[in-house]
Amino acid sequence: MNNKTSNETPEIITAAILVIGDEILSGRTKDANVNYMACHFTKIGIRLMEVRVVGDEEVAIIEALNTLRKKFDYVFTTGGIGPTHDDITAPTVAKALDVRLNIDDRAIDMMKLKYSDHELNDVRLRMARIPEGAQLIENTVSFAPGFMIENIIVLAGVPAIMQVMLDAVTPKLRVGKKIYSTTLIHPHPESTVATDLEELQEIYKDVSVGSYPFFKDGSLGTQLVLRSVNIDSLNTAKESLSQRLSEKL
Amino acid sequence: MNNKTSNETPEIITAAILVIGDEILSGRTKDANVNYMACHFTKIGIRLMEVRVVGDEEVAIIEALNTLRKKFDYVFTTGGIGPTHDDITAPTVAKALDVRLNIDDRAIDMMKLKYSDHELNDVRLRMARIPEGAQLIENTVSFAPGFMIENIIVLAGVPAIMQVMLDAVTPKLRVGKKIYSTTLIHPHPESTVATDLEELQEIYKDVSVGSYPFFKDGSLGTQLVLRSVNIDSLNTAKESLSQRLSEKL
Repeated sequence: MNNKTSNETPEIITAAILVIGDEILSGRTKDANVNYMACHFTKIGIRLMEVRVVGDEEVAIIEALNTLRKKFDYVFTTGGIGPTHDDITAPTVAKALDVRLNIDDRAIDMMKLKYSDHELNDVRLRMARIPEGAQLIENTVSFAPGFMIENIIVLAGVPAIMQVMLDAVTPKLRVGKKIYSTTLIHPHPESTVATDLEELQEIYKDVSVGSYPFFKDGSLGTQLVLRSVNIDSLNTAKESLSQRLSEKL
Repeated sequence: MNNKTSNETPEIITAAILVIGDEILSGRTKDANVNYMACHFTKIGIRLMEVRVVGDEEVAIIEALNTLRKKFDYVFTTGGIGPTHDDITAPTVAKALDVRLNIDDRAIDMMKLKYSDHELNDVRLRMARIPEGAQLIENTVSFAPGFMIENIIVLAGVPAIMQVMLDAVTPKLRVGKKIYSTTLIHPHPESTVATDLEELQEIYKDVSVGSYPFFKDGSLGTQLVLRSVNIDSLNTAKESLSQRLSEKL
């Protein structure tokens, strides 16, 4: 899965997202970050392999972090870096990596863009707690930074802040070949094209053929998605599939 | 975590969701099921403890299933039960549990409500493949059923179909005490209330105090969510917090 550099195969860089927050699990909040990040990764050439959502609980976070950071090239976390008692991401990342957690002078300098010296009280300084050895990730919205340590990238949960942090960290990431994709719509259920798709997948081994049913106005239709790092294979497969679909209309 | 029946503590029933689908990871599709299911679980008295999203890949699905089914009372899967080559949930669940996968006569009977005998071709019969020993879950939208085997509940990925299946399976689930919750809005950043929340959490140990920043019209505010199975504690904690917040306006 972690197919790093080689001459024969395209370099694939993989990632997981770890969403941290009770509010997602209780249903109170709808996650708004995963789809944004998934699209961003596809665009820049990182393959998102897994997403996990866990609550604000140290044991669950450490277990997920330690599994995902060994399995994939990057782990991106969202949530839990504010100043309140339920914001435990920074100390938990430090604990998972067995490094110290410091009040970081560089983080304080960033926060001084927003806060006066006397506003930087103990509570706000919780947002300057950064695991030793981390690079900071700039936050141009509310100034308390995210950070990157080893292959773990810690971002805010508030979407507007997560997005500026993701932009800030992107130039620092290794990326693989971009995946091209194309979608065809078929106004009939999946079962009408299943055999064709199986044959197509056999012929075009470097194209992944996905079939996604949708339900609209009382009837089922199918979205067909072809994906490949090889644009020529993709185009040939698309032409072949279009031909087959047109015969079924 | 799996705190089953006891006289002293309220019975907690836990669950995880396993979302199966490449299309979520590539960003092509926005998951529309997790939040719906999370709200449903909270309403009926099941605690959602974890969510995972994996691709249409046998190894990843089996690994996630085997971890989650041992850790929680229930695992709900969504996606991958259609008729195409990338729909591998049913055979993969059978493999994870080491049981046979059969073309199930009960499933065929359900599908006959929609399809004539000659329409029930090999491709459509893929949707009647059910692990041996499973109970079927009725699908009043498109008739191919979901199923429940041991503590694994297999639902469709199309939201309209997932929702009728979830309703159909709900009466069969064990549930725990319901969690009551209440939300207060504070129009200032979290840092202005962090100390109060910490104190409140110390005093009301059976109330979970959550703090969620939001960003609106250029400034940060805070949603404060109190949750408890004990409605009296919840109301007392809410009153105390309201009092503290009003002093800060």
